[in-house]
Amino acid sequence: MSVSEIVAQRADRYLDWYIEACSIPSLADEPDSLADMAAWLDERFHALGASTERLTFEGAPDVILATLGSGEKSVLVYDHYDVQPVDPIELWESKPFSPEVRSGVLYARGAADNKGDLIARLAALEIYAEVYGEPPFHIKFLVEGEEETGSRSFPGLVARYGHKLAADGCIWEGAGLDLAGRPELVFGAKGLAYVELNHLGLASDQHSSVAVIAPSPVWYVVEALASLRSRDGRVLIEGFYDDVVPPSEADERMLEALPFEEEAEKERLGIESFVGGASGLDLVRRYFFEPTCNIAGIDAGFTVPGASKTVLPRSALAKVDFRLVPDQDPADIVAKLRRHLVKHGYDKIEILGHSMEHPVRSPSDSDIGRAAVTAAEKVYAGKPAVAPLMIATGPMHPIAGTLGIPTVSPAGVCRPDSNIHAPNEHCLIEDFNTTIEYTVAWLEAFGSSG
Amino acid sequence: MSVSEIVAQRADRYLDWYIEACSIPSLADEPDSLADMAAWLDERFHALGASTERLTFEGAPDVILATLGSGEKSVLVYDHYDVQPVDPIELWESKPFSPEVRSGVLYARGAADNKGDLIARLAALEIYAEVYGEPPFHIKFLVEGEEETGSRSFPGLVARYGHKLAADGCIWEGAGLDLAGRPELVFGAKGLAYVELNHLGLASDQHSSVAVIAPSPVWYVVEALASLRSRDGRVLIEGFYDDVVPPSEADERMLEALPFEEEAEKERLGIESFVGGASGLDLVRRYFFEPTCNIAGIDAGFTVPGASKTVLPRSALAKVDFRLVPDQDPADIVAKLRRHLVKHGYDKIEILGHSMEHPVRSPSDSDIGRAAVTAAEKVYAGKPAVAPLMIATGPMHPIAGTLGIPTVSPAGVCRPDSNIHAPNEHCLIEDFNTTIEYTVAWLEAFGSSG
Repeated sequence: MSVSEIVAQRADRYLDWYIEACSIPSLADEPDSLADMAAWLDERFHALGASTERLTFEGAPDVILATLGSGEKSVLVYDHYDVQPVDPIELWESKPFSPEVRSGVLYARGAADNKGDLIARLAALEIYAEVYGEPPFHIKFLVEGEEETGSRSFPGLVARYGHKLAADGCIWEGAGLDLAGRPELVFGAKGLAYVELNHLGLASDQHSSVAVIAPSPVWYVVEALASLRSRDGRVLIEGFYDDVVPPSEADERMLEALPFEEEAEKERLGIESFVGGASGLDLVRRYFFEPTCNIAGIDAGFTVPGASKTVLPRSALAKVDFRLVPDQDPADIVAKLRRHLVKHGYDKIEILGHSMEHPVRSPSDSDIGRAAVTAAEKVYAGKPAVAPLMIATGPMHPIAGTLGIPTVSPAGVCRPDSNIHAPNEHCLIEDFNTTIEYTVAWLEAFGSSG
Repeated sequence: MSVSEIVAQRADRYLDWYIEACSIPSLADEPDSLADMAAWLDERFHALGASTERLTFEGAPDVILATLGSGEKSVLVYDHYDVQPVDPIELWESKPFSPEVRSGVLYARGAADNKGDLIARLAALEIYAEVYGEPPFHIKFLVEGEEETGSRSFPGLVARYGHKLAADGCIWEGAGLDLAGRPELVFGAKGLAYVELNHLGLASDQHSSVAVIAPSPVWYVVEALASLRSRDGRVLIEGFYDDVVPPSEADERMLEALPFEEEAEKERLGIESFVGGASGLDLVRRYFFEPTCNIAGIDAGFTVPGASKTVLPRSALAKVDFRLVPDQDPADIVAKLRRHLVKHGYDKIEILGHSMEHPVRSPSDSDIGRAAVTAAEKVYAGKPAVAPLMIATGPMHPIAGTLGIPTVSPAGVCRPDSNIHAPNEHCLIEDFNTTIEYTVAWLEAFGSSG
């Protein structure tokens, strides 16, 4: 029986695992559920013949390190068991932690990010062992519970346990599938500097007539924000682009080969044109090689839609995230932001740092990189879309940068419209099953390589 | 016996009226109570020898028109019998509609805005008749029940019943007393154009990494807002200041004579300097003669303080209120705003109009204006603070503008710390009694004038 036939035969069994995992509300602010999720994984790994241990770090949920196989070579597999918050909860069509299958699609928070890939990999371990026996290399699953809140402890944890994590290659979550269903593979991730800007400028909310003489904290923050960026998306903070590495010749060839459905993407987003009117190779280059300055949230005063209240609000808050590219440094970017605000007269704004992640890239021609691409060519119908790095962020730097382990985010369950980080997150069960088959394939390819 | 002695002797009687009036919860969403309040006023006016009628307008609470006196001249007195909502109810120290006297202060919703002035005026009618006999002029009380929800029907009602309202002068609620207890008098009100700006720019919320190619609705709104105003508060909408009437020589003299405690005001607001660094006569001129562009509220994306979520929000909302000065026209200002947004490339922003009020000014040297000032000089200890207009907005335009009746908001019970529109609204009973005496004084002064 082929791997794909086995997957088909066992579909219900693995869907049960998947639904079980998605039923656990492993949210950052529910430590008991995080612990339940970790215990569920421990049990599952043991059942698959792995030995597990807990890697601990002060203030962080336990990280699970599950090891199986034997031999000289080893591959590290990074996933996370925590999920994004569920707000706005009222927009969900079914409860986020009561997984529901509708028309071949599983709806649940975490279904795509990242429980889909994680559970598919567990299933693949079971099938691999049956088909090929014990892996002729070590497989080390590293599953953390702090990814959605910024993996704050991950760099320290990797520093502390680096000797246990040594590997010849690393599989990092999943890059997923593109809009056309093609497998995507990337060899790095953009970084992140996420800050909260606060300004409390008045003793109390005032009747808005007082705005004629009292400086408005809202205007102050709006004007400060407007100073950060030009209308075509260029960041105006001094030195912001200093450390940006431009694409190499090889990168340009990779970009040229990369499919990018502009019209489909515009339709999905509901937009008429992209930032700065970009298209073609320009657009693809921007996609992977440009950093961003995004307003993730802004709040002040009276905001009930359709109603009016004439108030001069005492304070304003904005959340700004910078998506960084190699070799920008998040701490350096925040320092430059601070200097910008001071220089432009916005020194009263308090900057509260949240998530910080270094951007990172690995070579695409490592053993694990080649195994992931080869397996994708074998399992998926469409030609793989191989890109330099993912435009989102993961805490990949300690592994791919500090430890220098060649890292690839392979094909997986996520599609651009999977609603990760949004209401009605979902995953096609067919994609979940293919990811099982694909995982068996890259495990086999990695084992046969070198 | 002097008027002030009569007031002292009758203090309990008038406090009873005041408490009765404040016991009726005449809220917009309690039509039965609004009707009770109107009936209570009818009865009180009849007892004072007035004839009353109800002016009606579709969808609005009845307006009471109570007339007494005889002769050629007439004065219109505008008050309202509805009150602000009581939320946040939990912050009240006593129940808002169970008036309570504590240390010479009456606490109740409506005690200051506007039942204090209204009941003091009823008391004054009784005393005036005893001391001076029947007034040698007509007094027309116009008491509406829709003021706190924006007096939506008032312009239409004034248009319908204008012939009944004809008068040589109008007393408009009360400007009150300033922080130092000085009587305040104003001869108009700023106008208002309150709009909600909405922009839905994406099909759904996106992971913030997508911001590298997807235009951000939040940036769009923030940049549109930033285009409206310079950092020193100057509004950049083309033609915004076209119809602004600058202060006259007489206005300048009025402003020079006007006390303005800059340091106390800064301390109250918790600020180091005023908008544009203004001070002295500049500041006072700005206070009364400058329009504003204020952000009353802004909302988009993820706004939980202290937490992070990397989202590219699909939409953004802002509430902007323009406080207008004569002769700006609210509809014209909204039209100019719309043109500005289109011209600067922000045509995708939807503009939803809320409250609109015309600014208006009356001359200060009318019979009623002089009577109100003269009486204030006679009754109050401090020198009156006479200002061109109030910086807030009232539905004064149909009377003072359309009908052209010279209008003054005279001294009254409100102090800046009376907590109007807030929990624990209150009024000093001493201020209530002085307002009775003051009302008798301006009735007498108006009767003796011309």
